Amino acid sequence: MLDSIPSFARLVAELTKFPGIGSKTAARLAFFLLRQSSADTEALAEAILDLKRNTRFCSVCHHITEADPCRICSDPARDDRLVCVVETPQDLLAVERSHSFRGRYHVLHGALSPLDGIGPKDLKIPQLMDRLRQGGIEEVLVATNFTVEGDATALYLARQIETTGIRITRLAYGIPMGSELEYIDEATVNRAIEGRRNIL
Amino acid sequence: MLDSIPSFARLVAELTKFPGIGSKTAARLAFFLLRQSSADTEALAEAILDLKRNTRFCSVCHHITEADPCRICSDPARDDRLVCVVETPQDLLAVERSHSFRGRYHVLHGALSPLDGIGPKDLKIPQLMDRLRQGGIEEVLVATNFTVEGDATALYLARQIETTGIRITRLAYGIPMGSELEYIDEATVNRAIEGRRNIL
Repeated sequence: MLDSIPSFARLVAELTKFPGIGSKTAARLAFFLLRQSSADTEALAEAILDLKRNTRFCSVCHHITEADPCRICSDPARDDRLVCVVETPQDLLAVERSHSFRGRYHVLHGALSPLDGIGPKDLKIPQLMDRLRQGGIEEVLVATNFTVEGDATALYLARQIETTGIRITRLAYGIPMGSELEYIDEATVNRAIEGRRNIL
Repeated sequence: MLDSIPSFARLVAELTKFPGIGSKTAARLAFFLLRQSSADTEALAEAILDLKRNTRFCSVCHHITEADPCRICSDPARDDRLVCVVETPQDLLAVERSHSFRGRYHVLHGALSPLDGIGPKDLKIPQLMDRLRQGGIEEVLVATNFTVEGDATALYLARQIETTGIRITRLAYGIPMGSELEYIDEATVNRAIEGRRNIL
Protein backbone atom coordinates (compact mmCIF):
# COMPACT_ATOMS: atom_id res chain seq x y z
CA MET A 1 0.00 0.00 0.00
CA LEU A 2 2.77 2.34 1.02
CA ASP A 3 4.65 1.41 -2.16
CA SER A 4 2.72 4.20 -3.82
CA ILE A 5 4.40 6.74 -1.50
CA PRO A 6 8.13 5.88 -1.77
CA SER A 7 9.41 8.61 0.55
CA PHE A 8 6.98 7.48 3.25
CA ALA A 9 7.98 3.85 2.81
CA ARG A 10 11.67 4.81 2.96
CA LEU A 11 11.29 6.75 6.21
CA VAL A 12 9.36 3.85 7.75
CA ALA A 13 12.20 1.52 6.71
CA GLU A 14 14.77 3.85 8.31
CA LEU A 15 12.77 4.17 11.55
CA THR A 16 12.35 0.40 11.93
CA LYS A 17 16.14 0.17 12.28
CA PHE A 18 15.74 1.63 15.78
CA PRO A 19 15.71 -0.97 18.55
CA GLY A 20 12.18 -1.69 19.76
CA ILE A 21 10.50 0.10 16.85
CA GLY A 22 8.48 -2.16 14.58
CA SER A 23 6.77 -1.25 11.34
CA LYS A 24 3.53 -0.16 13.03
CA THR A 25 5.25 2.23 15.42
CA ALA A 26 7.46 3.48 12.58
CA ALA A 27 4.37 4.24 10.49
CA ARG A 28 2.81 6.06 13.44
CA LEU A 29 5.94 8.19 13.87
CA ALA A 30 6.09 8.91 10.14
CA PHE A 31 2.43 9.98 10.10
CA PHE A 32 3.18 12.25 13.04
CA LEU A 33 6.06 13.84 11.09
CA LEU A 34 3.76 14.32 8.10
CA ARG A 35 1.47 16.45 10.23
CA GLN A 36 4.35 18.55 11.58
CA SER A 37 5.50 21.76 9.94
CA SER A 38 8.54 21.69 7.67
CA ALA A 39 10.40 23.74 10.29
CA ASP A 40 9.78 21.03 12.89
CA THR A 41 10.94 18.17 10.69
CA GLU A 42 13.99 20.18 9.59
CA ALA A 43 14.87 20.77 13.24
CA LEU A 44 14.71 17.01 13.86
CA ALA A 45 16.82 16.17 10.79
CA GLU A 46 19.34 18.82 11.78
CA ALA A 47 19.51 17.51 15.35
CA ILE A 48 20.25 14.01 14.03
CA LEU A 49 23.04 15.29 11.78
CA ASP A 50 24.45 17.51 14.54
CA LEU A 51 24.61 14.59 16.94
CA LYS A 52 27.12 12.80 14.71
CA ARG A 53 28.89 16.01 13.61
CA ASN A 54 29.40 17.46 17.07
CA THR A 55 29.94 14.50 19.35
CA ARG A 56 32.84 12.13 19.74
CA PHE A 57 34.12 9.82 22.43
CA CYS A 58 36.37 11.27 25.11
CA SER A 59 39.95 10.12 24.54
CA VAL A 60 40.40 9.55 28.28
CA CYS A 61 37.19 7.89 29.53
CA HIS A 62 35.39 7.13 26.20
CA HIS A 63 32.16 8.81 27.31
CA ILE A 64 30.32 10.79 24.62
CA THR A 65 31.33 14.43 24.55
CA GLU A 66 31.56 17.52 22.38
CA ALA A 67 34.86 18.73 23.87
CA ASP A 68 37.81 16.35 24.33
CA PRO A 69 38.60 15.51 27.12
CA CYS A 70 35.01 15.50 28.38
CA ARG A 71 33.65 17.72 31.12
CA ILE A 72 33.97 14.99 33.74
CA CYS A 73 37.59 14.18 32.86
CA SER A 74 38.52 17.86 32.90
CA ASP A 75 36.69 18.72 36.13
CA PRO A 76 39.39 19.63 38.70
CA ALA A 77 36.99 18.99 41.60
CA ARG A 78 36.79 15.26 40.94
CA ASP A 79 38.86 12.60 42.64
CA ASP A 80 41.57 11.20 40.33
CA ARG A 81 42.22 8.25 42.60
CA LEU A 82 38.86 6.59 41.97
CA VAL A 83 37.67 5.27 38.60
CA CYS A 84 34.21 3.84 37.99
CA VAL A 85 34.05 1.34 35.10
CA VAL A 86 30.72 1.15 33.26
CA GLU A 87 29.53 -0.67 30.16
CA THR A 88 27.86 2.25 28.36
CA PRO A 89 27.46 6.04 28.44
CA GLN A 90 23.88 5.41 29.65
CA ASP A 91 25.27 3.54 32.66
CA LEU A 92 27.62 6.44 33.38
CA LEU A 93 24.63 8.79 33.40
CA ALA A 94 22.78 6.45 35.79
CA VAL A 95 25.71 6.59 38.22
CA GLU A 96 25.92 10.39 37.85
CA ARG A 97 22.22 10.72 38.63
CA SER A 98 22.82 9.08 42.02
CA HIS A 99 25.03 12.08 42.97
CA SER A 100 27.09 9.70 45.08
CA PHE A 101 30.21 9.30 42.97
CA ARG A 102 32.78 12.07 42.58
CA GLY A 103 35.61 10.15 40.90
CA ARG A 104 36.40 9.59 37.22
CA TYR A 105 34.88 7.10 34.77
CA HIS A 106 35.89 4.58 32.16
CA VAL A 107 33.31 3.47 29.58
CA LEU A 108 33.99 -0.01 28.19
CA HIS A 109 31.38 0.21 25.39
CA GLY A 110 30.06 -3.24 26.09
CA ALA A 111 30.73 -6.31 28.19
CA LEU A 112 32.70 -9.49 27.57
CA SER A 113 30.60 -12.04 25.72
CA PRO A 114 32.55 -14.97 24.28
CA LEU A 115 29.40 -16.35 22.65
CA ASP A 116 29.03 -13.15 20.64
CA GLY A 117 32.77 -13.06 19.95
CA ILE A 118 33.31 -9.99 22.16
CA GLY A 119 36.69 -10.22 23.88
CA PRO A 120 38.75 -7.71 25.92
CA LYS A 121 40.20 -6.05 22.80
CA ASP A 122 36.71 -5.30 21.47
CA LEU A 123 36.10 -3.22 24.59
CA LYS A 124 38.08 -0.29 26.05
CA ILE A 125 39.84 -2.70 28.42
CA PRO A 126 43.39 -2.18 26.99
CA GLN A 127 42.82 1.58 27.37
CA LEU A 128 41.76 1.04 31.00
CA MET A 129 44.91 -0.96 31.73
CA ASP A 130 46.97 1.87 30.17
CA ARG A 131 45.28 4.40 32.46
CA LEU A 132 45.99 2.22 35.49
CA ARG A 133 49.67 1.82 34.50
CA GLN A 134 50.05 5.60 34.37
CA GLY A 135 49.57 5.61 38.15
CA GLY A 136 47.56 7.73 40.57
CA ILE A 137 44.51 5.47 40.56
CA GLU A 138 43.90 3.72 43.87
CA GLU A 139 40.50 2.11 43.38
CA VAL A 140 38.54 0.77 40.43
CA LEU A 141 34.80 0.52 41.14
CA VAL A 142 33.31 -1.92 38.64
CA ALA A 143 29.74 -0.90 37.82
CA THR A 144 29.08 -3.28 34.94
CA ASN A 145 25.56 -4.68 34.76
CA PHE A 146 24.41 -7.51 37.00
CA THR A 147 24.10 -9.88 34.05
CA VAL A 148 26.16 -12.91 33.06
CA GLU A 149 28.25 -10.71 30.75
CA GLY A 150 28.59 -7.88 33.27
CA ASP A 151 29.64 -10.29 36.02
CA ALA A 152 32.13 -12.00 33.69
CA THR A 153 33.60 -8.61 32.78
CA ALA A 154 33.90 -7.64 36.45
CA LEU A 155 35.67 -10.91 37.24
CA TYR A 156 38.00 -10.54 34.25
CA LEU A 157 38.92 -6.99 35.29
CA ALA A 158 39.49 -8.12 38.89
CA ARG A 159 41.93 -10.81 37.67
CA GLN A 160 43.76 -8.32 35.44
CA ILE A 161 44.01 -5.66 38.10
CA GLU A 162 44.74 -7.77 41.19
CA THR A 163 48.50 -7.95 40.38
CA THR A 164 48.74 -4.13 40.29
CA GLY A 165 47.80 -3.69 43.96
CA ILE A 166 44.98 -1.32 43.01
CA ARG A 167 41.83 -1.94 45.06
CA ILE A 168 38.98 -3.30 42.92
CA THR A 169 35.37 -3.08 44.10
CA ARG A 170 31.92 -3.90 42.75
CA LEU A 171 28.55 -2.19 43.31
CA ALA A 172 26.61 -3.95 46.09
CA TYR A 173 23.97 -6.52 45.22
CA GLY A 174 20.77 -6.19 47.20
CA ILE A 175 17.15 -5.18 47.45
CA PRO A 176 16.25 -2.04 45.46
CA MET A 177 14.98 0.95 47.46
CA GLY A 178 11.23 1.04 47.92
CA SER A 179 10.69 -2.63 47.04
CA GLU A 180 8.50 -5.12 48.79
CA LEU A 181 10.42 -8.24 49.66
CA GLU A 182 7.54 -10.42 48.52
CA TYR A 183 8.13 -9.41 44.91
CA ILE A 184 11.91 -9.68 44.82
CA ASP A 185 13.39 -12.69 43.01
CA GLU A 186 15.08 -15.31 45.16
CA ALA A 187 18.56 -14.83 43.69
CA THR A 188 18.50 -11.16 44.74
CA VAL A 189 17.23 -12.03 48.23
CA ASN A 190 20.00 -14.63 48.45
CA ARG A 191 22.64 -12.01 47.53
CA ALA A 192 21.10 -9.50 49.95
CA ILE A 193 21.35 -12.00 52.80
CA GLU A 194 24.96 -12.83 51.92
CA GLY A 195 25.73 -9.11 51.84
CA ARG A 196 23.86 -8.28 55.09
CA ARG A 197 25.31 -5.42 57.14
CA ASN A 198 25.12 -4.33 60.77
CA ILE A 199 22.41 -1.76 61.35
CA LEU A 200 24.29 -0.06 64.18
CA MET B 1 24.00 15.53 33.07
CA LEU B 2 23.24 15.71 29.37
CA ASP B 3 23.65 19.49 29.55
CA SER B 4 27.32 18.89 28.92
CA ILE B 5 26.48 17.39 25.51
CA PRO B 6 24.18 19.99 23.93
CA SER B 7 23.68 18.22 20.60
CA PHE B 8 22.66 15.06 22.43
CA ALA B 9 20.25 16.96 24.67
CA ARG B 10 18.78 18.75 21.64
CA LEU B 11 18.13 15.50 19.76
CA VAL B 12 16.51 13.98 22.85
CA ALA B 13 14.27 17.07 23.10
CA GLU B 14 13.30 16.71 19.42
CA LEU B 15 12.56 12.99 19.78
CA THR B 16 10.33 13.49 22.83
CA LYS B 17 7.98 15.50 20.60
CA PHE B 18 6.90 12.19 19.06
CA PRO B 19 3.69 10.77 20.53
CA GLY B 20 4.39 7.97 23.00
CA ILE B 21 8.12 8.73 23.26
CA GLY B 22 9.28 9.90 26.67
CA SER B 23 12.71 11.12 27.65
CA LYS B 24 14.03 7.63 28.46
CA THR B 25 13.03 6.16 25.12
CA ALA B 26 14.33 9.28 23.36
CA ALA B 27 17.71 8.87 25.08
CA ARG B 28 17.78 5.21 24.07
CA LEU B 29 17.10 6.12 20.44
CA ALA B 30 19.74 8.87 20.53
CA PHE B 31 22.33 6.47 21.96
CA PHE B 32 21.44 4.04 19.19
CA LEU B 33 22.05 6.78 16.60
CA LEU B 34 25.39 7.58 18.22
CA ARG B 35 26.54 4.04 17.59
CA GLN B 36 25.40 4.10 13.94
CA SER B 37 27.67 5.15 11.10
CA SER B 38 27.40 8.69 9.73
CA ALA B 39 26.03 7.21 6.51
CA ASP B 40 23.17 5.60 8.45
CA THR B 41 22.24 8.75 10.35
CA GLU B 42 22.46 10.82 7.17
CA ALA B 43 20.11 8.38 5.45
CA LEU B 44 17.62 8.84 8.30
CA ALA B 45 17.88 12.64 8.25
CA GLU B 46 17.50 12.64 4.47
CA ALA B 47 14.44 10.36 4.67
CA ILE B 48 12.83 12.76 7.16
CA LEU B 49 13.48 15.76 4.93
CA ASP B 50 12.31 13.88 1.80
CA LEU B 51 9.04 12.94 3.47
CA LYS B 52 8.05 16.59 3.72
CA ARG B 53 9.66 17.60 0.43
CA ASN B 54 8.10 14.85 -1.69
CA THR B 55 4.69 14.26 -0.20
CA ARG B 56 1.52 16.32 -0.24
CA PHE B 57 -2.17 15.62 0.22
CA CYS B 58 -4.15 14.52 -2.82
CA SER B 59 -6.36 17.38 -4.00
CA VAL B 60 -9.24 14.97 -4.59
CA CYS B 61 -9.29 12.57 -1.60
CA HIS B 62 -6.72 14.24 0.74
CA HIS B 63 -4.71 11.05 1.22
CA ILE B 64 -0.93 11.48 1.35
CA THR B 65 0.69 11.12 -2.03
CA GLU B 66 3.71 12.06 -4.11
CA ALA B 67 1.75 12.55 -7.35
CA ASP B 68 -1.47 14.58 -7.43
CA PRO B 69 -4.09 13.15 -7.82
CA CYS B 70 -2.98 10.10 -5.87
CA ARG B 71 -2.63 6.60 -7.27
CA ILE B 72 -6.02 5.54 -5.91
CA CYS B 73 -7.87 8.56 -7.33
CA SER B 74 -6.23 8.10 -10.73
CA ASP B 75 -6.75 4.31 -10.90
CA PRO B 76 -9.24 3.72 -13.77
CA ALA B 77 -10.14 0.27 -12.40
CA ARG B 78 -11.81 1.66 -9.29
CA ASP B 79 -15.49 2.30 -8.85
CA ASP B 80 -16.31 6.04 -8.99
CA ARG B 81 -19.78 5.48 -7.57
CA LEU B 82 -18.58 4.42 -4.13
CA VAL B 83 -16.63 6.67 -1.71
CA CYS B 84 -15.26 5.47 1.63
CA VAL B 85 -14.87 8.25 4.21
CA VAL B 86 -12.07 7.74 6.77
CA GLU B 87 -10.60 9.90 9.53
CA THR B 88 -6.92 9.51 8.67
CA PRO B 89 -4.52 8.19 6.00
CA GLN B 90 -3.75 5.33 8.42
CA ASP B 91 -7.42 4.33 8.40
CA LEU B 92 -7.41 4.41 4.59
CA LEU B 93 -4.46 2.00 4.62
CA ALA B 94 -6.32 -0.27 7.06
CA VAL B 95 -9.30 -0.45 4.67
CA GLU B 96 -6.96 -1.07 1.72
CA ARG B 97 -5.29 -3.93 3.58
CA SER B 98 -8.65 -5.70 3.77
CA HIS B 99 -8.66 -5.94 -0.07
CA SER B 100 -12.43 -5.70 0.08
CA PHE B 101 -13.04 -2.15 -1.10
CA ARG B 102 -12.54 -1.08 -4.72
CA GLY B 103 -14.14 2.36 -4.63
CA ARG B 104 -12.60 5.79 -3.98
CA TYR B 105 -11.74 7.44 -0.65
CA HIS B 106 -12.13 10.71 1.20
CA VAL B 107 -9.83 11.45 4.15
CA LEU B 108 -11.36 13.87 6.68
CA HIS B 109 -8.13 14.38 8.66
CA GLY B 110 -9.86 14.01 12.00
CA ALA B 111 -13.31 13.64 13.50
CA LEU B 112 -15.82 16.12 14.88
CA SER B 113 -15.06 17.00 18.47
CA PRO B 114 -16.93 20.02 19.83
CA LEU B 115 -15.06 19.78 23.15
CA ASP B 116 -11.75 20.23 21.31
CA GLY B 117 -13.27 22.91 19.09
CA ILE B 118 -13.12 20.73 15.97
CA GLY B 119 -16.09 21.48 13.73
CA PRO B 120 -16.98 20.45 10.15
CA LYS B 121 -14.87 23.22 8.61
CA ASP B 122 -11.76 22.00 10.43
CA LEU B 123 -12.14 18.71 8.57
CA LYS B 124 -12.36 17.96 4.84
CA ILE B 125 -16.17 17.85 5.12
CA PRO B 126 -16.88 20.88 2.85
CA GLN B 127 -14.60 19.24 0.24
CA LEU B 128 -16.59 15.99 0.58
CA MET B 129 -19.87 17.82 0.03
CA ASP B 130 -18.36 19.46 -3.07
CA ARG B 131 -17.39 16.06 -4.45
CA LEU B 132 -20.91 14.75 -3.84
CA ARG B 133 -22.47 17.76 -5.58
CA GLN B 134 -20.38 17.07 -8.69
CA GLY B 135 -22.46 13.90 -9.18
CA GLY B 136 -21.66 10.31 -10.06
CA ILE B 137 -21.34 9.13 -6.45
CA GLU B 138 -24.09 6.72 -5.41
CA GLU B 139 -22.92 5.53 -1.99
CA VAL B 140 -20.84 6.98 0.84
CA LEU B 141 -19.45 4.30 3.17
CA VAL B 142 -18.55 6.01 6.46
CA ALA B 143 -15.56 4.24 8.04
CA THR B 144 -14.82 6.70 10.84
CA ASN B 145 -13.66 5.13 14.09
CA PHE B 146 -16.09 3.51 16.53
CA THR B 147 -15.50 6.21 19.12
CA VAL B 148 -17.73 9.01 20.38
CA GLU B 149 -16.14 11.41 17.88
CA GLY B 150 -16.21 8.92 15.01
CA ASP B 151 -19.87 8.11 15.65
CA ALA B 152 -20.77 11.80 15.90
CA THR B 153 -18.99 12.45 12.60
CA ALA B 154 -20.85 9.56 10.94
CA LEU B 155 -24.19 10.88 12.20
CA TYR B 156 -23.36 14.43 11.08
CA LEU B 157 -22.42 13.22 7.60
CA ALA B 158 -25.59 11.12 7.39
CA ARG B 159 -27.70 14.20 8.20
CA GLN B 160 -25.85 16.31 5.63
CA ILE B 161 -26.07 13.71 2.90
CA GLU B 162 -29.60 12.35 3.43
CA THR B 163 -31.18 15.20 1.45
CA THR B 164 -29.05 14.41 -1.61
CA GLY B 165 -30.56 10.95 -2.13
CA ILE B 166 -27.06 9.39 -2.01
CA ARG B 167 -27.01 6.13 -0.02
CA ILE B 168 -24.99 6.45 3.19
CA THR B 169 -23.69 3.36 4.99
CA ARG B 170 -21.52 2.58 8.00
CA LEU B 171 -19.07 -0.28 8.63
CA ALA B 172 -20.79 -3.08 10.60
CA TYR B 173 -20.39 -3.29 14.35
CA GLY B 174 -19.72 -6.79 15.63
CA ILE B 175 -17.39 -9.40 17.03
CA PRO B 176 -13.87 -9.25 15.57
CA MET B 177 -12.65 -12.31 13.66
CA GLY B 178 -10.90 -14.90 15.80
CA SER B 179 -12.21 -13.56 19.12
CA GLU B 180 -13.58 -15.52 22.01
CA LEU B 181 -16.97 -14.23 23.05
CA GLU B 182 -16.00 -14.45 26.72
CA TYR B 183 -13.51 -11.60 26.29
CA ILE B 184 -15.64 -9.26 24.20
CA ASP B 185 -17.07 -6.20 25.96
CA GLU B 186 -20.83 -6.17 26.48
CA ALA B 187 -21.50 -3.13 24.28
CA THR B 188 -19.95 -4.94 21.32
CA VAL B 189 -21.93 -8.12 22.05
CA ASN B 190 -25.05 -5.96 22.28
CA ARG B 191 -24.36 -4.41 18.86
CA ALA B 192 -23.54 -7.83 17.39
CA ILE B 193 -26.90 -9.20 18.57
CA GLU B 194 -28.76 -6.20 17.15
CA GLY B 195 -26.94 -6.68 13.86
CA ARG B 196 -27.41 -10.47 13.70
CA ARG B 197 -27.79 -11.98 10.22
CA ASN B 198 -29.27 -15.16 8.77
CA ILE B 199 -26.70 -17.88 8.34
CA LEU B 200 -28.42 -19.43 5.31
